[in-house]
Amino acid sequence: MDLVDFRPTRDQFAYTFGGATPVMRIRPGTALRLWTEDAFNFALQSVDDLASEKVNLAEVNPQTGPFFVEGAEPGDTLAVHIVDLTPARSWGASATIPFFGGLTSTDRTSTLQEPLPDTTWIYHVDSATNTVGFEPRFGGGPAVRLPIEPMLGTVGVAPAAREVRTSLVPDRFGGNMDTPEMRAGTTCYLGVNVEGALWSLGDGHYRQGEGEACGTAVEGAMNVTVIVDLIKDGGPGWPRLESDSHLMAVGSSRPLEDAWRTGQVELVRWFEQLYGLHHMDAYQLLSQLSEAPLANVVDANYSVVLKAAKHVMPAVSPYGGMHALMRERAASLGTITYD
Amino acid sequence: MDLVDFRPTRDQFAYTFGGATPVMRIRPGTALRLWTEDAFNFALQSVDDLASEKVNLAEVNPQTGPFFVEGAEPGDTLAVHIVDLTPARSWGASATIPFFGGLTSTDRTSTLQEPLPDTTWIYHVDSATNTVGFEPRFGGGPAVRLPIEPMLGTVGVAPAAREVRTSLVPDRFGGNMDTPEMRAGTTCYLGVNVEGALWSLGDGHYRQGEGEACGTAVEGAMNVTVIVDLIKDGGPGWPRLESDSHLMAVGSSRPLEDAWRTGQVELVRWFEQLYGLHHMDAYQLLSQLSEAPLANVVDANYSVVLKAAKHVMPAVSPYGGMHALMRERAASLGTITYD
Amino acid sequence: MDLVDFRPTRDQFAYTFGGATPVMRIRPGTALRLWTEDAFNFALQSVDDLASEKVNLAEVNPQTGPFFVEGAEPGDTLAVHIVDLTPARSWGASATIPFFGGLTSTDRTSTLQEPLPDTTWIYHVDSATNTVGFEPRFGGGPAVRLPIEPMLGTVGVAPAAREVRTSLVPDRFGGNMDTPEMRAGTTCYLGVNVEGALWSLGDGHYRQGEGEACGTAVEGAMNVTVIVDLIKDGGPGWPRLESDSHLMAVGSSRPLEDAWRTGQVELVRWFEQLYGLHHMDAYQLLSQLSEAPLANVVDANYSVVLKAAKHVMPAVSPYGGMHALMRERAASLGTITYD
Amino acid sequence: MDLVDFRPTRDQFAYTFGGATPVMRIRPGTALRLWTEDAFNFALQSVDDLASEKVNLAEVNPQTGPFFVEGAEPGDTLAVHIVDLTPARSWGASATIPFFGGLTSTDRTSTLQEPLPDTTWIYHVDSATNTVGFEPRFGGGPAVRLPIEPMLGTVGVAPAAREVRTSLVPDRFGGNMDTPEMRAGTTCYLGVNVEGALWSLGDGHYRQGEGEACGTAVEGAMNVTVIVDLIKDGGPGWPRLESDSHLMAVGSSRPLEDAWRTGQVELVRWFEQLYGLHHMDAYQLLSQLSEAPLANVVDANYSVVLKAAKHVMPAVSPYGGMHALMRERAASLGTITYD
Repeated sequence: MDLVDFRPTRDQFAYTFGGATPVMRIRPGTALRLWTEDAFNFALQSVDDLASEKVNLAEVNPQTGPFFVEGAEPGDTLAVHIVDLTPARSWGASATIPFFGGLTSTDRTSTLQEPLPDTTWIYHVDSATNTVGFEPRFGGGPAVRLPIEPMLGTVGVAPAAREVRTSLVPDRFGGNMDTPEMRAGTTCYLGVNVEGALWSLGDGHYRQGEGEACGTAVEGAMNVTVIVDLIKDGGPGWPRLESDSHLMAVGSSRPLEDAWRTGQVELVRWFEQLYGLHHMDAYQLLSQLSEAPLANVVDANYSVVLKAAKHVMPAVSPYGGMHALMRERAASLGTITYD
Repeated sequence: MDLVDFRPTRDQFAYTFGGATPVMRIRPGTALRLWTEDAFNFALQSVDDLASEKVNLAEVNPQTGPFFVEGAEPGDTLAVHIVDLTPARSWGASATIPFFGGLTSTDRTSTLQEPLPDTTWIYHVDSATNTVGFEPRFGGGPAVRLPIEPMLGTVGVAPAAREVRTSLVPDRFGGNMDTPEMRAGTTCYLGVNVEGALWSLGDGHYRQGEGEACGTAVEGAMNVTVIVDLIKDGGPGWPRLESDSHLMAVGSSRPLEDAWRTGQVELVRWFEQLYGLHHMDAYQLLSQLSEAPLANVVDANYSVVLKAAKHVMPAVSPYGGMHALMRERAASLGTITYD
Repeated sequence: MDLVDFRPTRDQFAYTFGGATPVMRIRPGTALRLWTEDAFNFALQSVDDLASEKVNLAEVNPQTGPFFVEGAEPGDTLAVHIVDLTPARSWGASATIPFFGGLTSTDRTSTLQEPLPDTTWIYHVDSATNTVGFEPRFGGGPAVRLPIEPMLGTVGVAPAAREVRTSLVPDRFGGNMDTPEMRAGTTCYLGVNVEGALWSLGDGHYRQGEGEACGTAVEGAMNVTVIVDLIKDGGPGWPRLESDSHLMAVGSSRPLEDAWRTGQVELVRWFEQLYGLHHMDAYQLLSQLSEAPLANVVDANYSVVLKAAKHVMPAVSPYGGMHALMRERAASLGTITYD
Repeated sequence: MDLVDFRPTRDQFAYTFGGATPVMRIRPGTALRLWTEDAFNFALQSVDDLASEKVNLAEVNPQTGPFFVEGAEPGDTLAVHIVDLTPARSWGASATIPFFGGLTSTDRTSTLQEPLPDTTWIYHVDSATNTVGFEPRFGGGPAVRLPIEPMLGTVGVAPAAREVRTSLVPDRFGGNMDTPEMRAGTTCYLGVNVEGALWSLGDGHYRQGEGEACGTAVEGAMNVTVIVDLIKDGGPGWPRLESDSHLMAVGSSRPLEDAWRTGQVELVRWFEQLYGLHHMDAYQLLSQLSEAPLANVVDANYSVVLKAAKHVMPAVSPYGGMHALMRERAASLGTITYD
């Protein structure tokens, strides 16, 4: 298995899906040890750094990539298996950015009200307890230690129809889905839209609540190990995820019910393919089986994850057993370390 | 502790929150052993019973109640603790009702398309494995056994502002929230709007997926044991739930993001009250801590549950320790049996 | 033609559709000269009256009625023809009520932001120019005179399914649709849900912009003359309006696209009935012909009006020529005067 | 005044805003006589041409342009004045494309239902009466002649933040707003995002109903005369329009209420700038004054137009009197003819 190490320089970051020059060509089946900058592009380093002053909103969610996958063509399926996510700094940052987030008016849900206070929180990593520390900024209330549960906010490929989209938006091509399910052990399946797929990732979160209410997670630089492979057909309509325990689909749209609809239909379609169920039977069965955690209600599109537990269903091997194969390859890498 | 047994006759069911004559007056602190009819009002008993022919949509979700709680006044908080839920039949039913459900056009999300097929599924209970059995109706695909996880679709009080609402709609007064969190061990806090509170419950589900995609769960008659108490102030804005592990709020509205917003704000407000946090700090903390499973995307209003794990937070006793007290009372009832 | 005069005393107002005792029984074909209080229930009489202090939100949109129509049964169609609307005071009021309106967060589109300022505007009537006067309250900018264009915010019947709804909400039963199309010369067709129909009206506006952005129009007491009749079948799914120039349907729901969908489908259905068009042809034709002004984006449900100009279509006589008949009857009343 | 004639060859069409090579550089103040292909890219020429077979959805709404405006820089305002729109063919086409449109489920409002029939309508132009003819395709119902009211579905510039968007989507950069207000006599103001502005236009409609219910108007090739100029600052947040009678803003988003919110806020902001009103007074005044016709409820984003009649307001000269200047220049061109 090829093993690539890549740590982008500042001028190598991409800020879009599509439209960026590939940083590297790789073969299907390659493992990559990568480094990702935080979503704020390292602009918030203390509670005194305010988003409105320091963050350039045209350069957030810097992407590591894009990578050109040899042989990838429109209609194929790209599989990105997350082997390991390890915080690359001793602290993460979160912020309430004026007119950005879920419990404020925004540039779309536009009102005439004043913004919420522009505020930054710094979460220090405690390796011994594997936690990050929340500390109140407005006086009153407890400091709280929260478990570190690393995940990636963005994994995506170049969009279809010649489009170039910012790394803030999730859609059919993946992108800024912001789901805690994008963790080590998960395989992400994305439909390929352009030659080479041109996938990238970034936006590491040391942890995030479902919905990402304020618009930002515990954002931090991340060491990332993934294995990438190619399946020569069957590009799914929307991103699909597989873990040892669940089959998942991610829908992204507005309003939020449309995000749910797209994700739920995608999971129905997957059940039809995997189990030979009629779509009405898959619909009925998933009505009783689906879990439906929100991913984000704050990005340009909202995202919902639809999950089905594997253990109640007959054993199947989606995409020719790709997830199991990825797990074996990941194990063969042994303990992952970063410089 | 008073212990009341009540099994409504067919003509005692209520189909609304508000507007129905109380079936009984009870004192705060009463335990009740109740029986609830299924959501279809027993109209679907085999796969040959079609919803369009058998189900009277003006008489679904029959409610057991309403009960008048002595001393309850507007502004109080009603606490309904679910002690036990036990399926009262050996089978449950589910159905795709024409133009009802999440992956079809409806009377609101109105299109010119044909409806999906009017179909009924019967799920047989297997007590030995504590499962219900799904069987495909359209040919192809596996039969699947799913764990029984009993819950109540509807728990609610009479609405404010003189309104009377059908038992199909969830809102501030609770009602048809359709969340799997409404299970044994959960305490539900509802703001009282009228003298006596006039609470009722019904719509037992032997199990339900999050979102209740097709619009109906595994619907079944249920034996229900609850303990009901009254807190003389602090009526919450939206329904709050408490389990041994989580604090929760339920938002219900359309579009789905508004359901999320109301529930997430309600949880922020509860964190302010419980922990002395400023609302901005509560917002930030919950952005990293909240779980956000969908409840339903199919009713007149959609519902989202916002959950916060207790174990990472300092110990608190919401509503004067009501949940712990309820757990003790429930334990004092010993093993629950039904005739 | 029977002619009824009715001016409710303060304790005769209704605040709901359904649930209120009829003030009077009338025969189909009756003309009524009525008086309606303003939406604020006369609580805002100067710019120093603040909504948060003076307005009782449980008693807004006071309804004149309900009236019991003899012979009206579920499935019938009630026709309410507006003969005349004449302001009954020399001023109207408007206000930005905290957390109410379109360009603010609300109890549903809930955020953590501060409310907009609680402000009242008084518009004086100038009969000579038939205008009301806007005067800036925050300094700067011109005073502006706006044409008086009287309309009724609410016209409705008792809802179906035993429901009782506040006079703030529009839905299938009509209610607080808040469209400028509800003006003198318009006939409103509503499906009857309960015996006697139990219709009422209120919420006079001296004028209103489409969308009613801030949540309140130029609210004023109104002298109202209507003629009411009954059509013994064909209850429409959603309110339909007819003027000399247009056929219209009003959809009310959330999100706003669902309000549009319901109204547009209702107009397609009406075109099928009136012109013998297949629904696909009606859909196509109305795609090129419909006008679609917003009514309100601020109530519990939003409302959209769908309009089709009559003059491009072959002549038809909806509901047996009811609108033309109403126009004749209205003319037979001669000049309308109020005491 | 420079006068440019440009009729693109088939390989010169652009299908995106941003990302396309300019076809020409022009100076501010240039008049252009252009030709635009229809939205289907000439794929539907008879009722036997089905969209699913003939239309390449990656190449619809072909754009004439983009044009590079010398001196245009981010933050500037581009003014595009429509002088004349003349149908360039003797017929237009409309279609119900499977899973596209307002009264069907779509790839976002996704359901499991069958699509509506894939159907094409051809509208023949009658120059004598200046009408197009609707003919039923499903049997039954009248043929109807509808007035020709030419408009452009798409006028836009390159987006901000490095994005490239398909010509199917409207947003801050303009694009596929699909409003009948984009007619001869209208000046469209767009914020410039990139050097040269890179504006284009296309998607001529011989007529369209508000909302564009079925997703397609009477689509036809168009002869287009515009004058383009540059204002060296003040780039509006969202597209603004000006006619002799109205000031307008166009909001585009999902859900539809967010499109309305953005447009209504933009009009409030414009009123602040033009009249010196406080935003609360502008909000109040526009609540009584705004007209709010829907533009489309069918594209990737929905669009709403907010309009304010000029005649009730004091006279102002937005953008230094640009609209009046454009009207003079247009008059100076005399009668427009096309080869």
